Amino acid sequence: MYCSGMPEAASVPAVRATIGDSEFDRDTAVTRRAPGVYDIDLSAGWTIISAVNGGYLLAVLGRALADALPHADPFTVSAHYLTASQPGPAVVRTDVVRTGRTLSTGQASLFQYDDQGREVERIRVLASYGDLGALPDDVRTTAVPPAIPPIEQCFGPDDGPAPVDGSSAITDRLMLKLDPSTLGWALGQPSGNGEMRAWFGLADGRDADPLSLLLTVDALPPTAFELGLKGWVPTVELTVHVRCRPAPGPLRVSITTRNLAGGFLEEDAEVWDSAGRLVAQSRQLARVRLG
Amino acid sequence: MYCSGMPEAASVPAVRATIGDSEFDRDTAVTRRAPGVYDIDLSAGWTIISAVNGGYLLAVLGRALADALPHADPFTVSAHYLTASQPGPAVVRTDVVRTGRTLSTGQASLFQYDDQGREVERIRVLASYGDLGALPDDVRTTAVPPAIPPIEQCFGPDDGPAPVDGSSAITDRLMLKLDPSTLGWALGQPSGNGEMRAWFGLADGRDADPLSLLLTVDALPPTAFELGLKGWVPTVELTVHVRCRPAPGPLRVSITTRNLAGGFLEEDAEVWDSAGRLVAQSRQLARVRLG
Repeated sequence: MYCSGMPEAASVPAVRATIGDSEFDRDTAVTRRAPGVYDIDLSAGWTIISAVNGGYLLAVLGRALADALPHADPFTVSAHYLTASQPGPAVVRTDVVRTGRTLSTGQASLFQYDDQGREVERIRVLASYGDLGALPDDVRTTAVPPAIPPIEQCFGPDDGPAPVDGSSAITDRLMLKLDPSTLGWALGQPSGNGEMRAWFGLADGRDADPLSLLLTVDALPPTAFELGLKGWVPTVELTVHVRCRPAPGPLRVSITTRNLAGGFLEEDAEVWDSAGRLVAQSRQLARVRLG
Repeated sequence: MYCSGMPEAASVPAVRATIGDSEFDRDTAVTRRAPGVYDIDLSAGWTIISAVNGGYLLAVLGRALADALPHADPFTVSAHYLTASQPGPAVVRTDVVRTGRTLSTGQASLFQYDDQGREVERIRVLASYGDLGALPDDVRTTAVPPAIPPIEQCFGPDDGPAPVDGSSAITDRLMLKLDPSTLGWALGQPSGNGEMRAWFGLADGRDADPLSLLLTVDALPPTAFELGLKGWVPTVELTVHVRCRPAPGPLRVSITTRNLAGGFLEEDAEVWDSAGRLVAQSRQLARVRLG
């Protein structure tokens, strides 16, 4: 989960990166060493303070599973976060649980190394993959996109007076423009509502795809900030459902919390594409430190 | 997920069963054959038509993990449903992923046997366990309990004119009283709203505990019925967060669907106890057959 400080807005790139040829694609690329074993060097470009963003890690695991399974698109991915990842070498081990005609299920773990070179597990996921392109077009959604002001009326850190707490490389890689009505926390006046809304894109202009949605659902500042809390909100578990292949263009993201209790909170994300389709839903359970 | 037909309301038992000595406890009891290997005979008492209820299966896996892990309470359980379970012998295999001071993470799979006696995996789960009793009492919940009429104004099948589609043993084991405003489907007039609300208990009067909440989140008729769909709504993935140890007395459950699209829907459950605490939240991704 995002930690603290307002995100740095990126300027619009002169040349837009494309799906398959972008920072996100290069930094999530895994190299198959053996069947079900993938090497990756976790990039320092997706860190928040010193921790690697959980959504970036989910995309890395998602890419390994897309290679290991007969289906390419994540439909539902459940991740349990075990220990904090650091930039640097890592290995992903995958296991094919079941392959079916329309859905396949796999498991994957991401490991790094301790001082003695022993593997330490960072995250374990279960995921079911399918083919989003093969789904029928029926939509009976009753949900509506979040009401966010036009992008030029929303704020990144270049636009606002709030100082940045700490430094986070990930903010250079995101186009994140927050709805000013959910920005009270940045001015020391949190609203008390567990909600955050933003326009979201990748700073190099790469459009969204099912894999980048795994990043998107965990890339906003936490709702905890608007609830008046500060500091680290580590994810315990995060499940994301990818419901539709996103159309090109900026995404709208809303995250909400209904229940902060006992030192934990849930955070629900909805991601909408430029065509007004609900393309991803996620929920995470995170720990909070009461400030 | 619940399939079809209105649930049978059970009469109030003369002698209330207790936690540890009830049908639910006997039918979810697992026998440790070896470290991390548990035998169980899946009861025919929790079936819907001929399929075993997914919430009951989750409780069986949850009980095995409570034995295998150093912590007893499920905090977050993510289940991927692979193949349909049948009443009869099964084995649960658990794996301790990580043990920590406040949280432990485990994995478990439930297997049954094919005609040749080979193991077939039914469900795989990842789960993080802790001690609900050790959590601080702080509550900043903004969610409010669902508005359900008093229990005596709600309906079980004994109270209504709707015929029962098929026969489901599970209905004999539940005290399920549905809010009449979410019962249009039973009269052939679904509201089109993806919502279902009910009072919930176990028919033998056993109070709720964290393990029985794993059953509760998947025990109502599906929201799909109120969306005008009929038939089987098989769960692909279900994640539940247990947020608080439930107080004695009946529970209130609401389930909602915001996005029915492409042949899938999500279903969110909230479970509230008699003290007005939000004790569990769940989300599942299920397939639908458009009717």
